[in-house]
Amino acid sequence: MSSSSVMQKIVALSKRRGFVFQASELYGGLNGFWDYGPLGVLLKNNIRDAWWRAMVLSPPIGPDGNPLSIVGLDTAIIQHPQTWVASGHAQGFSDPMVDCHESKGRYRADQLVVFDVPAEKGGEKITLRIAAVAADDAEESVLKRAQKLARAAGGRPAKVDKLDPPVVYTALNAEEQKIVYGPDASAPGTLTEPRQFNLMFESYAGALKDESNKVYLRPETAQGIFLDFKNVLDSSRVKVPFGIAQIGKSFRNEVNPRNFVFRSREFEQMEMEFFCSPEDSRKWYEFWVQARLDWWLGLGVKKESLKIRHHDADELAFYSTATADIEYAYPFTAPDYGELEGVAHRGAYDLTQHQNHSKTKLEYFDQEKNLRYIPHVIEPAAGLTRALLVLLCEAYTFDEKRASPEILNLHPKMAPIKAGIFPLVDKDGMPETAHALYMDLRKKYVCQYDAKQAIGKRYARMDEAGTPYCVTVDGETAKDQTVTVRDRTTGNQERVSLDAVPRFLAERLDS
Amino acid sequence: MSSSSVMQKIVALSKRRGFVFQASELYGGLNGFWDYGPLGVLLKNNIRDAWWRAMVLSPPIGPDGNPLSIVGLDTAIIQHPQTWVASGHAQGFSDPMVDCHESKGRYRADQLVVFDVPAEKGGEKITLRIAAVAADDAEESVLKRAQKLARAAGGRPAKVDKLDPPVVYTALNAEEQKIVYGPDASAPGTLTEPRQFNLMFESYAGALKDESNKVYLRPETAQGIFLDFKNVLDSSRVKVPFGIAQIGKSFRNEVNPRNFVFRSREFEQMEMEFFCSPEDSRKWYEFWVQARLDWWLGLGVKKESLKIRHHDADELAFYSTATADIEYAYPFTAPDYGELEGVAHRGAYDLTQHQNHSKTKLEYFDQEKNLRYIPHVIEPAAGLTRALLVLLCEAYTFDEKRASPEILNLHPKMAPIKAGIFPLVDKDGMPETAHALYMDLRKKYVCQYDAKQAIGKRYARMDEAGTPYCVTVDGETAKDQTVTVRDRTTGNQERVSLDAVPRFLAERLDS
Repeated sequence: MSSSSVMQKIVALSKRRGFVFQASELYGGLNGFWDYGPLGVLLKNNIRDAWWRAMVLSPPIGPDGNPLSIVGLDTAIIQHPQTWVASGHAQGFSDPMVDCHESKGRYRADQLVVFDVPAEKGGEKITLRIAAVAADDAEESVLKRAQKLARAAGGRPAKVDKLDPPVVYTALNAEEQKIVYGPDASAPGTLTEPRQFNLMFESYAGALKDESNKVYLRPETAQGIFLDFKNVLDSSRVKVPFGIAQIGKSFRNEVNPRNFVFRSREFEQMEMEFFCSPEDSRKWYEFWVQARLDWWLGLGVKKESLKIRHHDADELAFYSTATADIEYAYPFTAPDYGELEGVAHRGAYDLTQHQNHSKTKLEYFDQEKNLRYIPHVIEPAAGLTRALLVLLCEAYTFDEKRASPEILNLHPKMAPIKAGIFPLVDKDGMPETAHALYMDLRKKYVCQYDAKQAIGKRYARMDEAGTPYCVTVDGETAKDQTVTVRDRTTGNQERVSLDAVPRFLAERLDS
Repeated sequence: MSSSSVMQKIVALSKRRGFVFQASELYGGLNGFWDYGPLGVLLKNNIRDAWWRAMVLSPPIGPDGNPLSIVGLDTAIIQHPQTWVASGHAQGFSDPMVDCHESKGRYRADQLVVFDVPAEKGGEKITLRIAAVAADDAEESVLKRAQKLARAAGGRPAKVDKLDPPVVYTALNAEEQKIVYGPDASAPGTLTEPRQFNLMFESYAGALKDESNKVYLRPETAQGIFLDFKNVLDSSRVKVPFGIAQIGKSFRNEVNPRNFVFRSREFEQMEMEFFCSPEDSRKWYEFWVQARLDWWLGLGVKKESLKIRHHDADELAFYSTATADIEYAYPFTAPDYGELEGVAHRGAYDLTQHQNHSKTKLEYFDQEKNLRYIPHVIEPAAGLTRALLVLLCEAYTFDEKRASPEILNLHPKMAPIKAGIFPLVDKDGMPETAHALYMDLRKKYVCQYDAKQAIGKRYARMDEAGTPYCVTVDGETAKDQTVTVRDRTTGNQERVSLDAVPRFLAERLDS
């Protein structure tokens, strides 16, 4: 199956089974916004709770054998606008954008590639400069369009199979940009000059829509943590090294939302700022890169699906001495990888900025060393909604050998529904026995009781929902008090004593 | 202690112990926005999880003895703007507001009361018309101001102890409003005419700030549920009666945010829409009023702190046949009660509106009855952040007899930290034993290990944090393998076998 058709199948399954719906589909949808359905919200909550447990409720054991000290926080989405001046988002958090007068299309200028296509007009050699959105098939699409564009210009294209490598639109000067054909244009010169477009959503708090009331929806949860650094220090008796963790929604007015929930305008983040002494910061950076990779593996993501990419020196923010991305092999990036989580050494940058802008000391006093300093920060920042996408991609399995070939092989602990409880047929006392088991199990696990349709159909529905176990009460149950437990991944069934079902599940789900 | 000083103490404790911080305090704060600190987010998550469990993971048993069918959902905060036209929020979700030219103050016009104060000028009787913000002491404050205002007008006030009952500002006609003294004005006629102010935050999705891109931050989570009604029906095999539940942030650009987190501009809701047949709807309405009241009692809110207020006929929305508020005796409303949760019979209003505006059928087909209809809706809608305030108010206890008099008597299941684990002194093997116990317990419960300062101080800190149990390893532990367990509420201590501590906690926290 091709990568794009895998992605189509995942999107279709997500809608059909209630993982992800397009937001406001009833009104034609809203580009870049998504709703999480009954199964989606359960899966998302399982990821959220696993992260929160690993960070706040039961943080990792540190190099000294003691648990790390990490506390939780939940800050407002709307903060004082000065926050974003101090953080740099008000000035720098923008993408270059061009509009096309003809097609009314909008493009990220740094994602447009421009090819020089040789043509001929009245016996003279000319060059058509044709833009396309950067993609593997960009050259192909440009060659396809070249015929038509050359004729429209009164000439004809030269015969070429291969073009020179393209240049990025933003590398052209203003004069050169004026003769470019836009990706959806029939004539050259329809693209505007690139302009910087700030990605923060704006609003006004208070009745007057003036500058004094302008506010922004946070583009990341991290800054809320820095704003409360002093409050946490004063109220929680934490000592460096310690972390502050937060899960919540963020908003980015993306020019081109794309790839399902991968790049959306409203999304959820799981971010932790780990405050440490400057001299220990490198050690903690390495600790967190490894700890975060291990966490993803623990959710059932295969080692070969993940990659750690260390940023090159010229790619680092000026204040960062090291940053690594944990990348995942998404169907739409394969065989390449795309970002899943970033672990950044941010130095003392953020606290220093807020100290300067607020004129409030944000130093830490180390009593043992009798030393006052601004802590350095290691930031593991992951996307929660992106994590849901990764788990769906990772779990999605198409097995032609099975009657219902679509299966979500989710890690049992991440699965929205833990067990399906079925009577084989809807009579002979089977429903009563199965329902009694369901009533017992539901106190502890999300289970689904289902007595309708053929058993094969019921198994198939649970396979698509990612339910790891199906327990069926059948004709033998009344005789020997056993049931079958079917494993979603293998399709194998084993007979288990009715009494032993809670223990069977506990062994696989509770450890 | 007076109600207002109780409230001040709760606000101070909330900040000091890390329950609630003012958002962006570093930059002078932002009116109507709050952050939840390390203890606050744990308490809020406990309430959130209790609601989600009671609604989605393990819904109540219905009148037929079977569990109700309720699924979860998590929809985007930003939806298609047509949503708010259909729901009525775009037209009707507004407050009347007046500004004062002189004081620059802004007031809810329907919360201003106007008194007629008799005065005398040049031997003639005149009337000063003086406004105040509605409150118990409004008349008193007007009488105080009357002296000064009458002299400024060149007269003197008549001697009166009691004024005629006031009228609400909006009940005056435009001419009458022109001669009113504003609540903070020195001359009459400085108030603007009331104008309707829509409470939805506005923004733009996409690069162009034009009408076509205007979006709103949701003022309630409920509409997201109605938008996905059909998607849930198509993907989840639910049958009427069933519910869809959602927890998430909502935003209202309140004219006067007030009373701590009670009325803030960014807040969190827990809403459930229960879809049922029209003929059963009254029965379900009554079911949910009772079920929701029981739920609050189960969180440790005392019966006498709660009140059910049934809306009068003239108070009901035109589409509603019954609505009840579950009210709480807040310190700032006492001896009156204020809203905590609303349970509304919304009829078929919302689905009908969205069906009409989207031109998409939102009917349900009842196979057994062979009947097609738009379900009626019962909506229990509670505030999560308001629930946190209620639990803080309910738990706050000032006991002069105790060395550290401030105690949060939170229900053990709601408490952010379940147990403090202390060595009596930081030597003689006590820290090792206490730390080993801590390492064992932390796998299951949020615990705090603390070896610093006098034991009384450590108990007091846990009392303020609402921690129900403190386990202390002391000199006897090495001899007989017992520890003391101290109960926060009574201050009593009992000796418990070291081995038995996990069971002691499990019996009190896990049921």
